[in-house]
Amino acid sequence: MRAGDDLAGLIAPHVRDGDIVVIAQKVVSKAEGQLRALADVEPSAEAIALANQHDKDPRLVQVVLDESAEVIRASHGVLICETRHGFVCANAGVDVSNSGDQGVAVLLPVDPDASARRIRAAIAAPAGAASPVPDASPVRVGVVVSDSFGRPWRLGVVDVAIGAAGIRVLDDWRGRTDSHGRELHATEVALADQLASAADLARSKDSREPIVVIRGAEQYVSAADGPGAAALRRPREIDLFR
Amino acid sequence: MRAGDDLAGLIAPHVRDGDIVVIAQKVVSKAEGQLRALADVEPSAEAIALANQHDKDPRLVQVVLDESAEVIRASHGVLICETRHGFVCANAGVDVSNSGDQGVAVLLPVDPDASARRIRAAIAAPAGAASPVPDASPVRVGVVVSDSFGRPWRLGVVDVAIGAAGIRVLDDWRGRTDSHGRELHATEVALADQLASAADLARSKDSREPIVVIRGAEQYVSAADGPGAAALRRPREIDLFR
Repeated sequence: MRAGDDLAGLIAPHVRDGDIVVIAQKVVSKAEGQLRALADVEPSAEAIALANQHDKDPRLVQVVLDESAEVIRASHGVLICETRHGFVCANAGVDVSNSGDQGVAVLLPVDPDASARRIRAAIAAPAGAASPVPDASPVRVGVVVSDSFGRPWRLGVVDVAIGAAGIRVLDDWRGRTDSHGRELHATEVALADQLASAADLARSKDSREPIVVIRGAEQYVSAADGPGAAALRRPREIDLFR
Repeated sequence: MRAGDDLAGLIAPHVRDGDIVVIAQKVVSKAEGQLRALADVEPSAEAIALANQHDKDPRLVQVVLDESAEVIRASHGVLICETRHGFVCANAGVDVSNSGDQGVAVLLPVDPDASARRIRAAIAAPAGAASPVPDASPVRVGVVVSDSFGRPWRLGVVDVAIGAAGIRVLDDWRGRTDSHGRELHATEVALADQLASAADLARSKDSREPIVVIRGAEQYVSAADGPGAAALRRPREIDLFR
């Protein structure tokens, strides 16, 4: 995958109406050219100091700082950052593995929800289809852009949604009643994150399978693009852990 | 589901070798009699004070404290606790909704990994099978006991594994190489949590469907019971958020 590659065009032949397409962030970022050559990075004094403390490449730390709204924890060689989108994750989502070039950092997409919306729209109306088949209805899929995030308190990463379009992101059971007729309180289910996690089970980290199609989950596909993964960001004022 | 009910006996007719059975914690707890009638609870001064501060039932707070090794945060009407097993979650996993009786608290199983191992063994060798079919090989399934946990930084709950037997809980890619031959560092995947999340997508919170069978994921089923969900607990000394 390289900058300018037609990701939606690659996916479109493999999906049907009602599918959910889960795409690893890294290929979205590469298709969008969200890369920085480390050779071009001039680390600041802050980046050099942090890099020395945590045994990291100062140029990579500079890229992480550039992608961060805030460094939330710096310890054990790990920087936990809030990205400019408002996601909290290690290294602000910046990655160098799998980049195809040792000295290139892969950044998160600028707006992963917009990426998901664009891919969704392009699958519904493929770019090459200048004269669409008459009466052909558009293929309506859900799109999730996923990334692997660590968690406090639990070991191991799980895939979560950092971008989404055309799916129910949060299932809100608050105010509804359970099977005994009692109100279900504080029950909002992060459907988009669970879809991302389910998709990750279908591939292997070293197998170059960045795209997974979930079939049979039409109940989570929505007509509208919807609020996207931005709806999963916990507002700072109700977050007990920063 | 009531105390003493044969959960494995209910599941066994519906599974095949290689399946993964994901069971909601609440039915495991009920089958094990992990219930406390609030009428029998005498709240301590600490429970009464916390309950007043956070607008909760002091008896329920007492049950939560009894189940907790530590209260990590108390705010906004929510108690985030480390359970005696070492899991960090709201209200130490104590729940009153869906209990079938307004005044009864449902606790987590005493040892959810042991619960998973028992259910797995009983599915392999059903209790009623006094004279097993000669040459019949045991049905080897994986078992996950799941619960819905909230997360810092992200809205919505996701299902995670609090007990597991016969599955690969963590997939450890550390020291292995990626598709470009570079070492994958810090990549451990919490497979058991992703299996729990995937299963939750197949049911509806109000539908009384506590058990989900995942078929076609034999690659995650192991011959041995394995380390269980205990392996997912992040050791305190490498946890930046408590």
